[in-house]
Amino acid sequence: MRILLKSIYAVLPKGEDSLAVRRCDVGVEGDRILFAGEAPADFAPDKTIQGEDKLVVPGLVNAHTHAAMTLLRGRADDLPFMTWLFDHIIPMEDRLQKGDGDRLGDCYWGTMLAACEMLRSGTTCFNDMYFFIEDIACACMESGMRAVLSQGLLGNSRSDPGGLSRLNEAVADIKKYRGAGEGRLGFMLAPHAPYTCAPGYVALVAETARELGVRIHTHLGESRKEIEDLHAKYGQTPFEYMEAAGLFELPTVAAHCVYMTDADIEIARRYGISVATNPVSNLKLANGVAPLKRLQEAGVNIALGTDGAASNNSQNMIRELGTLCLVHKGINEDPECVPAAQGLHIATMGGARALGLADEIGSIEPGKKADLAILNLRHSHWTPRSNLLAALCYGAQGNEVETVLVNGEILLENGALTRMDEERIQWEAQRVSERLGG
Amino acid sequence: MRILLKSIYAVLPKGEDSLAVRRCDVGVEGDRILFAGEAPADFAPDKTIQGEDKLVVPGLVNAHTHAAMTLLRGRADDLPFMTWLFDHIIPMEDRLQKGDGDRLGDCYWGTMLAACEMLRSGTTCFNDMYFFIEDIACACMESGMRAVLSQGLLGNSRSDPGGLSRLNEAVADIKKYRGAGEGRLGFMLAPHAPYTCAPGYVALVAETARELGVRIHTHLGESRKEIEDLHAKYGQTPFEYMEAAGLFELPTVAAHCVYMTDADIEIARRYGISVATNPVSNLKLANGVAPLKRLQEAGVNIALGTDGAASNNSQNMIRELGTLCLVHKGINEDPECVPAAQGLHIATMGGARALGLADEIGSIEPGKKADLAILNLRHSHWTPRSNLLAALCYGAQGNEVETVLVNGEILLENGALTRMDEERIQWEAQRVSERLGG
Repeated sequence: MRILLKSIYAVLPKGEDSLAVRRCDVGVEGDRILFAGEAPADFAPDKTIQGEDKLVVPGLVNAHTHAAMTLLRGRADDLPFMTWLFDHIIPMEDRLQKGDGDRLGDCYWGTMLAACEMLRSGTTCFNDMYFFIEDIACACMESGMRAVLSQGLLGNSRSDPGGLSRLNEAVADIKKYRGAGEGRLGFMLAPHAPYTCAPGYVALVAETARELGVRIHTHLGESRKEIEDLHAKYGQTPFEYMEAAGLFELPTVAAHCVYMTDADIEIARRYGISVATNPVSNLKLANGVAPLKRLQEAGVNIALGTDGAASNNSQNMIRELGTLCLVHKGINEDPECVPAAQGLHIATMGGARALGLADEIGSIEPGKKADLAILNLRHSHWTPRSNLLAALCYGAQGNEVETVLVNGEILLENGALTRMDEERIQWEAQRVSERLGG
Repeated sequence: MRILLKSIYAVLPKGEDSLAVRRCDVGVEGDRILFAGEAPADFAPDKTIQGEDKLVVPGLVNAHTHAAMTLLRGRADDLPFMTWLFDHIIPMEDRLQKGDGDRLGDCYWGTMLAACEMLRSGTTCFNDMYFFIEDIACACMESGMRAVLSQGLLGNSRSDPGGLSRLNEAVADIKKYRGAGEGRLGFMLAPHAPYTCAPGYVALVAETARELGVRIHTHLGESRKEIEDLHAKYGQTPFEYMEAAGLFELPTVAAHCVYMTDADIEIARRYGISVATNPVSNLKLANGVAPLKRLQEAGVNIALGTDGAASNNSQNMIRELGTLCLVHKGINEDPECVPAAQGLHIATMGGARALGLADEIGSIEPGKKADLAILNLRHSHWTPRSNLLAALCYGAQGNEVETVLVNGEILLENGALTRMDEERIQWEAQRVSERLGG
């Protein structure tokens, strides 16, 4: 299928690390972007979208989430982090049911619900960490979204039977589903966090990741208590702990990173770690604000994620982008910190780089996958039409997203999901959520 | 007209200072709420809205804005406060044209645009400070919104001719328009800020307000530079400066209040000052975060405002509410700071109290004005349906608002504005904004 976005406002790369809006034609052929500029005279589209009142942006990359946690949305709010996690979230998660031959699993429905929400707010790719990966992979194949999946791995030692069993499961899932969904599915290994993974177990996961040729996805330095506990036990920061265990020999996406010493930032720089920052979740759980400015000064790649809907409470990357662009200005008393173009770059290319997909997604460039979000600008809150990047970062809601392509396929068209039965998904998610309790 | 909201989720008062969701009927007769509970057997509605999948909240009260600044939206972003204000905003404002017999004024169109955006995101009342008040009053009468208007007053001394001329204009407008629009229009006097109003001028404005029986609307302690300059010149904080000038003898809405000493907070408490906090604008202009927790501990009334769209960049109070509920948790490392019910209370009753309208608006109670926002809950990001207050504060976008009543009149019905020609308003606002430049 050939699709022409005719005379549309397009967010295009500007140098290595910025973006600019240009009015032009964008062409898609099959699963790839064919051009962004003037349409070649011989380009015969099957479908043309008139871009007069529209803005096309690279599909947003949600670099850290637990998509199926949409099932737990609104079931534990306004609580301290450790109470939230251990007294509410984990008990509910313990009641999640895996799918089998007879029945679709709970995480299938939770991920499908997240996919509806993500597509509706312009996200085309997400980096997920959860469990019952077969159910999640199934949801990704069906929804049409691009995703990098990982199972959260916990282990008390290198030979912890539970830890080994989870790792074996993760390896089997990777072998089974890697590249599924027309190549849309990727995988990582995910040692959950320093407070749930002993050093020997981390080392084993790292060795396994090297054998499989996959990246690492983990949580580091999310809460003050976790830092204090780790320091009391090992005398190390989360970064030092994972470095010592050899984790950073692999390309790593570290989520949260609210608490980082200068030495931690130097570790992140030296190993090329990507930090997936989650401003909304970190504020809501009162963990604080990540040291984005220091990370940027050190040249660390930054990506943006929503975290799960139990601590956000949405999967809306446009809302996340707004919070990203605002909060660091205020905290640093620096109005030029994370300007709009930089924020959107973080939410797109930053994520693509973190996921090892920088050659495939993250920007509107010929040859890249056609993962695109098209926004309708005919809203009062987008009027007057002036600085469109500022409008996106400081005023957008998410619902301006009207049409979304992933891998060249239209998954949302004029506000309607093409592949998914949203009403049924909402019904099933409600049913599961009520069973999980709160 | 009698309207019945049948079996709807309604946000009702819970004690003096909180809110809770209850499923019930809500009845409107004329401009007032008749009941919130079970519909009386003899209530014969002209119109019934089935509430199965809907939530009704008190219309949000935007306690501090400059509505017509929607015209400047996106024309000066990512800049330091004083550069933003003096090099960009004020020069554009100097080009704003007042309406006359032949032509509607620029501020009419800017305010109409803001009204479209506010209604679409659930705001029914706003507290405005700007100039060319006749144009703004005209927009409020036509749009159907409730508003409290004030002209920003600047004066170098008690006898400054410019200052006197502005004050006389403001007084004349108040006499002419007070209570217009079926009683929807109220007025305040607005000495702009300590850095634009000499003490003698502030005293004169306060005396005039007492004669007129109107409240005060002002900006206090927005930026660090303003604090430092005032301290260098007068050895006073903004609160001390205004107290010395006698301003606080009048009921006062003080916007921003990012910088407050303990003594300032004691002044606010003693005089019953309402603080209109503007978290998005304060973050965006890098002014910081208001000391909400200390204000709450002191028992100061807090209201919420968007500030103008040149520093926000929206007039979306649902987005503002989300930022309010998030940012103070993160800054104070307190996950129980501004829980959802409290945030919504601030955005409704807090505003009503600030505006002296607590007996008329701000909550869903029999006898109060029917200023209501009805949200459609059938969205994936509102699924599962669990904690609706958390969904509103932590996940909503604004576009869930489907139907809005002000003074018992439906101004937005199933997503369509009933009184305003939105397409024309957008067109006129675009035209004006292009003339103002950037």
